[in-house]
Amino acid sequence: MAEQKATNIHWHEGDITRKERGDLLGHGGATLWFTGLSGSGKSTVAVALEGVLHDMGVLCYRLDGDNVRFGINKNLGFSEDDRAENIRRVGEISKLFVDSGVLVLSSFISPYVRDRDLVRQVHEEAGMDFIEVFVDCSLEAAESRDPKGLYKKARAGEIKNFTGIDDPYEAPSAPEIHLHTDQQTLEDEVAQIIDVLKARGLISAT
Amino acid sequence: MAEQKATNIHWHEGDITRKERGDLLGHGGATLWFTGLSGSGKSTVAVALEGVLHDMGVLCYRLDGDNVRFGINKNLGFSEDDRAENIRRVGEISKLFVDSGVLVLSSFISPYVRDRDLVRQVHEEAGMDFIEVFVDCSLEAAESRDPKGLYKKARAGEIKNFTGIDDPYEAPSAPEIHLHTDQQTLEDEVAQIIDVLKARGLISAT
Repeated sequence: MAEQKATNIHWHEGDITRKERGDLLGHGGATLWFTGLSGSGKSTVAVALEGVLHDMGVLCYRLDGDNVRFGINKNLGFSEDDRAENIRRVGEISKLFVDSGVLVLSSFISPYVRDRDLVRQVHEEAGMDFIEVFVDCSLEAAESRDPKGLYKKARAGEIKNFTGIDDPYEAPSAPEIHLHTDQQTLEDEVAQIIDVLKARGLISAT
Repeated sequence: MAEQKATNIHWHEGDITRKERGDLLGHGGATLWFTGLSGSGKSTVAVALEGVLHDMGVLCYRLDGDNVRFGINKNLGFSEDDRAENIRRVGEISKLFVDSGVLVLSSFISPYVRDRDLVRQVHEEAGMDFIEVFVDCSLEAAESRDPKGLYKKARAGEIKNFTGIDDPYEAPSAPEIHLHTDQQTLEDEVAQIIDVLKARGLISAT
């Protein structure tokens, strides 16, 4: 094995910094935090945005219930404490991704101001961009979409503590981005977010 | 605001895959899991490797006690259950990073075979590379280095359940990479790892 070893190793001075990873990637890292009712369109806009950004050469990663609830957070339920811990952990993971240089798209109902503000705080204390995207949509519109049939079950009492039905959704008071998915086209929503990323210098404006 | 919006958005077909992110980066994602005694040299080799890989254009990210114990795992202590949960979470976070395309360097004493094998399992079930790096070093050599003064405290009874002193270290039986940091140079260790990454096609062989 000793005979095959790589030679001419170039030694780097000091630890690699977040800035150096950003230089390698050619863009900044940040957390886009999509919050809104079930069925409001969080995942739809995150998926569309991810495709557009990827084709612009931006390394994105989506965090959502699918890859979090069955992995790192599989030992959490839906009690108030567990929901708070779910969001806390996702916030910390988002921060690690930003540190690595990735543009993170985190989509969670995250109905409580205090949970979202904690995520904002851990980012801002580390000098990282936290961009809250309020995926606003009337309950009527979200319920009429009901892509997973969850509102129907909540109305029938089969699901308890369902956000918008028998649990509150606390709307952001000053989100960086406010979408109205019951009034905008998907293209318009994506363009609105891209503009903010450019204005912040996270992605190239050209 | 509507007047400033980005135009000519290019829509991407379908979700972005792990392969597409790898194509963007020009290399594969994988978890390099550094396990060994306190003072064995896990962080030293991980930092050196990160610098070399970064200069080769590889996006790396290091996970270690510093950015995990004070963040996502700050609600965990050092009981046996908490240590296992610490490693489980780091394993799941490593997997998310691999999915994003990053080459993850995770450095944790991780003394128990069952904990490390669980991390291996979640990677291999997802078709991801898990490369166990046994940072082997005699207890005598590690203790004589004692960079954080922890062995001294453990010998004095000020720290209980210290790996190697009054808690066991279960050595890997078939690690993908076996370093002997009390016998090799740092350059030799880095070269040995680079060779494995090339042989697996994770980074370019040229």
